[in-house]
Amino acid sequence: MSFSLTILGCNSAMPTPERFSTAQVINVSEHFFLIDCGEGTQIQLRRNKIKFGKINHIFISHLHGDHYFGLFGLISTFILLGRKKNLHIYCHPELKNIFDFLIKYFTDEIRFEIIFHFLNYEKNEIIFENDKLTVVSFPLKHKVPTCGFLFREKPRLRNIKKELIESMSIPIKEIVRIKQGYDYTTEEGKTIKNRDLTIDPPPPKSYAYCSDTAYYEDIIPVIRDIDLLYHEATFMNDMAESAALTSHSTAVQAATIAKKANVKKMVIGHYSLRYKDLQPVLDEARSVFKNTIAAEDGLIIDI
Amino acid sequence: MSFSLTILGCNSAMPTPERFSTAQVINVSEHFFLIDCGEGTQIQLRRNKIKFGKINHIFISHLHGDHYFGLFGLISTFILLGRKKNLHIYCHPELKNIFDFLIKYFTDEIRFEIIFHFLNYEKNEIIFENDKLTVVSFPLKHKVPTCGFLFREKPRLRNIKKELIESMSIPIKEIVRIKQGYDYTTEEGKTIKNRDLTIDPPPPKSYAYCSDTAYYEDIIPVIRDIDLLYHEATFMNDMAESAALTSHSTAVQAATIAKKANVKKMVIGHYSLRYKDLQPVLDEARSVFKNTIAAEDGLIIDI
Repeated sequence: MSFSLTILGCNSAMPTPERFSTAQVINVSEHFFLIDCGEGTQIQLRRNKIKFGKINHIFISHLHGDHYFGLFGLISTFILLGRKKNLHIYCHPELKNIFDFLIKYFTDEIRFEIIFHFLNYEKNEIIFENDKLTVVSFPLKHKVPTCGFLFREKPRLRNIKKELIESMSIPIKEIVRIKQGYDYTTEEGKTIKNRDLTIDPPPPKSYAYCSDTAYYEDIIPVIRDIDLLYHEATFMNDMAESAALTSHSTAVQAATIAKKANVKKMVIGHYSLRYKDLQPVLDEARSVFKNTIAAEDGLIIDI
Repeated sequence: MSFSLTILGCNSAMPTPERFSTAQVINVSEHFFLIDCGEGTQIQLRRNKIKFGKINHIFISHLHGDHYFGLFGLISTFILLGRKKNLHIYCHPELKNIFDFLIKYFTDEIRFEIIFHFLNYEKNEIIFENDKLTVVSFPLKHKVPTCGFLFREKPRLRNIKKELIESMSIPIKEIVRIKQGYDYTTEEGKTIKNRDLTIDPPPPKSYAYCSDTAYYEDIIPVIRDIDLLYHEATFMNDMAESAALTSHSTAVQAATIAKKANVKKMVIGHYSLRYKDLQPVLDEARSVFKNTIAAEDGLIIDI
């Protein structure tokens, strides 16, 4: 099952031709979840050949323009393409107000519903769930109400050893139970342990998105041991004061969170415009948490 | 004096990595006038190395998203860069309403004023004038109120023959009058014709922007004999019905306008997404009006 992250934009406040404003896509088994939607997101979706029709859920962390100004154009394009599937947007209630206001100026017929789900900025909450995946929102620490998002696969069924199905003539209804972890009792009354019938499935994968946020240890229990953490690293160490003033993080602070949460891998992003060359930013993060990579537009990370 | 057009985006409704939504810049003596502001305009300004601080006037033809969705991000960036110079926006009154609404969500301090000038969709009107240039708005024919814009240099002063100033000892106060076209009378009472003292200045340059619009002959008197016409050519001939239905033009219709108005040169744009290769669109236009070129992002035309 695919579980991959595509970076569509990774600059902070101001986009450039090299680094667009924040947006990224999580692909879970060819279902695409869009996280934030900075200006030009629809252009980056095209550039990365991600089909618009596959995006049914959009998560907006907070209402700073560089995280949602691309939403108007994206939805306008959905309308022009004749979209019929409903669209779910997880966001601050004010975004619905903005939409209700702006939609009056859209002249083309809308054939789908936009369903808004309002985020809880006080506590963690399951905001989406299907048979494969759970998405949890959790509060971050920023100048305006902001949420991070945790994408976690559900544990998969155990893999039954295929050769045994035939040799032991296991009935189909028993196969489902065995995959669920039960032992199997033959018609002759002999019980065979589940561990002799199955092998472990791949472990569930997990990804957390934390942007924008100041250094905030409260998120550590939420993201502990996950496979991949995206943490903003707007500034380098010499700008720690600016980071504090603007409720952003330094690369070292991001890495400290990654280390304390024992995540497997971290990708940093949301860079200040001043960092043309990202190597020094990356070096600072790696000095604390070695398994760090630097986001860039178009980067795909298989989790 | 420079007088050049830079195409920032030339697709219709939906932007792509190759062709952004509509936006262009007229450079008149290093003063930059932005016409329309589709999504990603600020990215294209950076790509084309046009300094944000030089843009003080923005002309918005109409309120379809592909012509103004980039304005929020651009103004947000102006704010973040600490802009202090006032910004003039020429547009439909509803755009001010949209701004008054959205600006509540901008959290950074605004140190400049946004001055809105509302367009007249019933008749031609001078909307901007300085010592070098006049800008006239004129109604187009579209699904919503839409204006085109005519940029016309003012006639320049005549060029005095420099060698005569010294040999004839012409006083400074007389030089100004001679440049204005007056004859010169020497202290001895001898009158010298202006044509013997001066040479013609370069003729005033002119540019008109017509997008979006159906085929509309009413604009011909406004744009007659101009140096350069930008006319939308959303469709090719086989889609003439779609053009009529959506109040857009075909390439042939654009060329017919150019021909009837006797313009010197035309640049077509606002292409439908379906035209990956623009040569056939251009060929259709050229079959009627030979001196046509096809807009593409980043194209600079010296007028």
